[in-house]
Amino acid sequence: MIIVMKAGAAKKDRDEVIKRIKELGYKPHVIHGTTRDVIGAVGDERGKLVLQSIESMHGVENVVPILKPYKLASKEVKFEPSVIPVTSSLAVGGKRLVVMAGPCSVESEAQILESAKAVKEAGATVLRGGAFKPRTSPYSFQGLEEDGLKLLAKARDLTGLPVVTEVVNPETADLVAEYADILQIGARNSQNFALLKKVGQLKKPVLLKRGMSMTIQEFLMSAEYIMSEGNQAVILCERGIRTFETATRNTLDLSAIPVLKEKTHLPVIADPSHGTGDYHYVAAMSCAAVAAGADGLIIEVHPDPERASSDGPQSLKPKKFASLMERLRKISQAMDRDL
Amino acid sequence: MIIVMKAGAAKKDRDEVIKRIKELGYKPHVIHGTTRDVIGAVGDERGKLVLQSIESMHGVENVVPILKPYKLASKEVKFEPSVIPVTSSLAVGGKRLVVMAGPCSVESEAQILESAKAVKEAGATVLRGGAFKPRTSPYSFQGLEEDGLKLLAKARDLTGLPVVTEVVNPETADLVAEYADILQIGARNSQNFALLKKVGQLKKPVLLKRGMSMTIQEFLMSAEYIMSEGNQAVILCERGIRTFETATRNTLDLSAIPVLKEKTHLPVIADPSHGTGDYHYVAAMSCAAVAAGADGLIIEVHPDPERASSDGPQSLKPKKFASLMERLRKISQAMDRDL
Amino acid sequence: MIIVMKAGAAKKDRDEVIKRIKELGYKPHVIHGTTRDVIGAVGDERGKLVLQSIESMHGVENVVPILKPYKLASKEVKFEPSVIPVTSSLAVGGKRLVVMAGPCSVESEAQILESAKAVKEAGATVLRGGAFKPRTSPYSFQGLEEDGLKLLAKARDLTGLPVVTEVVNPETADLVAEYADILQIGARNSQNFALLKKVGQLKKPVLLKRGMSMTIQEFLMSAEYIMSEGNQAVILCERGIRTFETATRNTLDLSAIPVLKEKTHLPVIADPSHGTGDYHYVAAMSCAAVAAGADGLIIEVHPDPERASSDGPQSLKPKKFASLMERLRKISQAMDRDL
Amino acid sequence: MIIVMKAGAAKKDRDEVIKRIKELGYKPHVIHGTTRDVIGAVGDERGKLVLQSIESMHGVENVVPILKPYKLASKEVKFEPSVIPVTSSLAVGGKRLVVMAGPCSVESEAQILESAKAVKEAGATVLRGGAFKPRTSPYSFQGLEEDGLKLLAKARDLTGLPVVTEVVNPETADLVAEYADILQIGARNSQNFALLKKVGQLKKPVLLKRGMSMTIQEFLMSAEYIMSEGNQAVILCERGIRTFETATRNTLDLSAIPVLKEKTHLPVIADPSHGTGDYHYVAAMSCAAVAAGADGLIIEVHPDPERASSDGPQSLKPKKFASLMERLRKISQAMDRDL
Repeated sequence: MIIVMKAGAAKKDRDEVIKRIKELGYKPHVIHGTTRDVIGAVGDERGKLVLQSIESMHGVENVVPILKPYKLASKEVKFEPSVIPVTSSLAVGGKRLVVMAGPCSVESEAQILESAKAVKEAGATVLRGGAFKPRTSPYSFQGLEEDGLKLLAKARDLTGLPVVTEVVNPETADLVAEYADILQIGARNSQNFALLKKVGQLKKPVLLKRGMSMTIQEFLMSAEYIMSEGNQAVILCERGIRTFETATRNTLDLSAIPVLKEKTHLPVIADPSHGTGDYHYVAAMSCAAVAAGADGLIIEVHPDPERASSDGPQSLKPKKFASLMERLRKISQAMDRDL
Repeated sequence: MIIVMKAGAAKKDRDEVIKRIKELGYKPHVIHGTTRDVIGAVGDERGKLVLQSIESMHGVENVVPILKPYKLASKEVKFEPSVIPVTSSLAVGGKRLVVMAGPCSVESEAQILESAKAVKEAGATVLRGGAFKPRTSPYSFQGLEEDGLKLLAKARDLTGLPVVTEVVNPETADLVAEYADILQIGARNSQNFALLKKVGQLKKPVLLKRGMSMTIQEFLMSAEYIMSEGNQAVILCERGIRTFETATRNTLDLSAIPVLKEKTHLPVIADPSHGTGDYHYVAAMSCAAVAAGADGLIIEVHPDPERASSDGPQSLKPKKFASLMERLRKISQAMDRDL
Repeated sequence: MIIVMKAGAAKKDRDEVIKRIKELGYKPHVIHGTTRDVIGAVGDERGKLVLQSIESMHGVENVVPILKPYKLASKEVKFEPSVIPVTSSLAVGGKRLVVMAGPCSVESEAQILESAKAVKEAGATVLRGGAFKPRTSPYSFQGLEEDGLKLLAKARDLTGLPVVTEVVNPETADLVAEYADILQIGARNSQNFALLKKVGQLKKPVLLKRGMSMTIQEFLMSAEYIMSEGNQAVILCERGIRTFETATRNTLDLSAIPVLKEKTHLPVIADPSHGTGDYHYVAAMSCAAVAAGADGLIIEVHPDPERASSDGPQSLKPKKFASLMERLRKISQAMDRDL
Repeated sequence: MIIVMKAGAAKKDRDEVIKRIKELGYKPHVIHGTTRDVIGAVGDERGKLVLQSIESMHGVENVVPILKPYKLASKEVKFEPSVIPVTSSLAVGGKRLVVMAGPCSVESEAQILESAKAVKEAGATVLRGGAFKPRTSPYSFQGLEEDGLKLLAKARDLTGLPVVTEVVNPETADLVAEYADILQIGARNSQNFALLKKVGQLKKPVLLKRGMSMTIQEFLMSAEYIMSEGNQAVILCERGIRTFETATRNTLDLSAIPVLKEKTHLPVIADPSHGTGDYHYVAAMSCAAVAAGADGLIIEVHPDPERASSDGPQSLKPKKFASLMERLRKISQAMDRDL
């Protein structure tokens, strides 16, 4: 950590800072500048954010962290990209892209089975569908809960597609893990640390969505929560951040893909459905995500979007999804990836 | 709800929309414009967000909601400001301002008792202190948990100050409610709907913090979650939103105070400590919040910020807090409020 | 425009609004809702933003515009994509993608000639380079001004590449237009209306960058300023918006590409160099932009980024640029475009 | 400046960086950390942003600036608050607050004279009014231009109030300076460097508005542009930043006031009219700005907001303005200021 002293700070203040750095177990190292001093605190600063409190000391202008606060998620700890096995025949993060597709919510047996067959046929490799739904309104449809999980299992039996579905509460996490192949943590729960710890103790891959106002560093810290509990199988998902722009529901931050690829070994996929909130833009952003280096996609597909209980406006019809898959195959080839 | 048709949409498309509006139980009402038609769907649209799915229909440009999606929190349901009783002698939302003060985390018996005495003496009316701490790093201090709750109770016995502390997990909510007088929901859990429902079932006032990227409408929807479970005692807290500006940790959105006062009967307080992240700016923003019409403040005060386990840089020393209280008394008078 | 009355607004208030709508030359149309009335004002609302002032009237909750405020830039006026000719052999917006490349600033004859040869060889079709530089610091290098323009002209003579360079002041716009083939309006001047009007009167294509906090609608309004002065040759450029994320200098909003393609006939290119501010991410975002449907790219290339007067950290070396062009050719094919 | 090397960077890379630091005229100072080296570059880094280009060098992770890039605006250069004289009897930045009030646009002689008399009577000390209007739509009212300036001069003759009005183009700046007492630079021109340089050469105080997505540091750099041309009479104005929140037109960042007071000697005022975009919230935010330590306010007042050519929804009627002034007098007293 670097402590920047104020211009003209007293020697006494500097000495107090040096003393405090030593107390905390670091080695101080002073650089005398032309207008002010800068003090390096040498040592592993991770997990010791208490150094930040030096900012309260007299004569200190500010404190600049040097090391990244995450370890297990970091490329410094593991350089090679992680490949996360889901089933015996499917893994996320290798040469082959993953495409997770299906409706926002499981609504009925007919709806989920029809969706599953359609996305399977078009080439998707994972079925998505929500049974527990975090909705901004208490008056909106909240999901079929355990009945929804059972229907997802039925769809898996029928198609062979593994299932990804959301976990919203530590209390029901074990129940969801009985049915699901991949546990999804939604954007609104991305800093629900009790929930992150809970899924860190389970033995299932986790699809972690980026929060709406989460920096990339905080995103990796949330992955670190899961990993520090013992579960290394974390798949990151960029799903759009909140900005001033209202033409799209969120702003899909595709630059997060190369940035994450530089900082972490974990696989990264993109969610163009939530990222744009409008089915018109889903195909373009799916192609763009793959060209940006994503390891896969999660896309909302609904047989009858006009009658969907949730997220109708951003869902593709099966036919549009199938033609998107055609285009994605060409882009994958151009990127030396398989689909 | 208003459905805006595309310029030149076919009559067939318009008829389909009209049919769908009727199916959903609304009364359609067409306005023929110069370049396009606009269709009103008359009826109570709250709780029926499914109307939004009309946006997927052919020929529809977009769907504009007219009614606010919250009811219980709305001024249309209850016009008079709510006054939330905390103890027999303290209420939030009346003429008298509330000042909640104390350290970010409960660290030790000495620390919390010293803090409690200091803030009481300066005129604070509620003691704050975290026992369960949601931290962005799994390696940071996570709070003293139940031991922390016991120390808070001891500080209450000593000073008579009621206690506000954070709830982070539905599983430990009952435990926290045994000790606390006010249950705090933190910014990162402001859309943790499982937790909101849980505190909605408890019989204690809830201090609900605004999420970092939460619109005012979403903030009121989170209050609605608590209220729709039966607990009407919700105190809203503006604590800064995330913006591009990095000179402060967050941007304290004081305009949220008059906006909320216009839309809801619930009391509104401000948190200038998290809002700015820097003790230098806490006094100015405390005064500003009261002048903007806040019903109170929650302020971090620590006897030794340079050694705090968390949030040192934004904590006031007791002496500075006492002098701030002096200034706040003058501002309160200017605003025809008591302190 | 739709005027939403307050719940329970008096009949008198509604009558006043109706009267005012008629005064302004519109036809009022009332929808009686269950809790409130909504009044449509039928007529062409563009250019008559004065309707917005009805929001000040008693009993009015808010005013919702229905029509987009731009005309000439709109697809409703011209449905087919515009193809903007630059030279006899180059146009922007057709099947063939444009790649503009070169250094941020023109620094010396050797530097700009070397850059021009390198980008030409790799396949770029336009040379970029700044002669007038808008810098956030008055103490930074401000460009070679007219000498820079002359060097750009020399580089054009040598390579045959047309030149794009920035205009920063109405007073020097004619001078720049003597030398440049495309006039660039930078992000910081994207709402400098005096400058927009000036380039609207010139007979050269304009490359209009999106402002850092500009909505897509405002972006199209700035294009409308240029077009309404008579110059229809506007090329739009997404170059990143300002968000809370600091891992990149800006957040490149690639979803702006499909959104713009839906709303306007003007061509759209992307600037991954300013969009990310870091050369490590430029290749990934270039590929992504083409896959999102961009009509081209503008990329910073410098023979010696470590010694660049400006924007070194985001400039590609010629060799990296050449290998990026290889990849882009593959992606273009996958998108049925030429490069 | 601090150069952070990558973990495990080669000695050769470090040596290259050291060599380059020396070449640029700085003194390198290496701190050997546990996992990586950090190199301080000692010397005055202001005006030499070229150090930033070291970020392109092999083995470098990032470059952290230590010094602020502004000088003349900085408190390090001038510690005492600047008091800017406007007329023989009015100055901005002293104990007495300034209140600038009047309509958004000058619309007619009757309108501006009536406005001037009303705001004078209520206690305003400067008259505001726009003659050249930067509007987002080319089809909106663009101001009365020189005729508007003449009407402002007439209103000044009648009331004795000095006049603040906007400059939008270097070409017409001299003309505006003939009539105005204070030259306003609007938010959209806050990084129009050609215009900043021009008003820096004039001998009139400048009211500089913060741009919609401008950091506080960039705001001070724009002030520095004006000051470095010789004009030290700069009054800063916080007028709201662009965020995700749509309940207000902008988010008035009142924390900018204490932050600016800490960093600069220049006076700071607030604009609650543009900051909120809604007259309902103007009074609350005016009071809050004064309590946050602002040196004054600029407020839109219009005798007939429902018929205003621009900004009707955010303008106060004279009666409401007068009652706000009553409240502001009380708050000023509580803050030990005069009004």
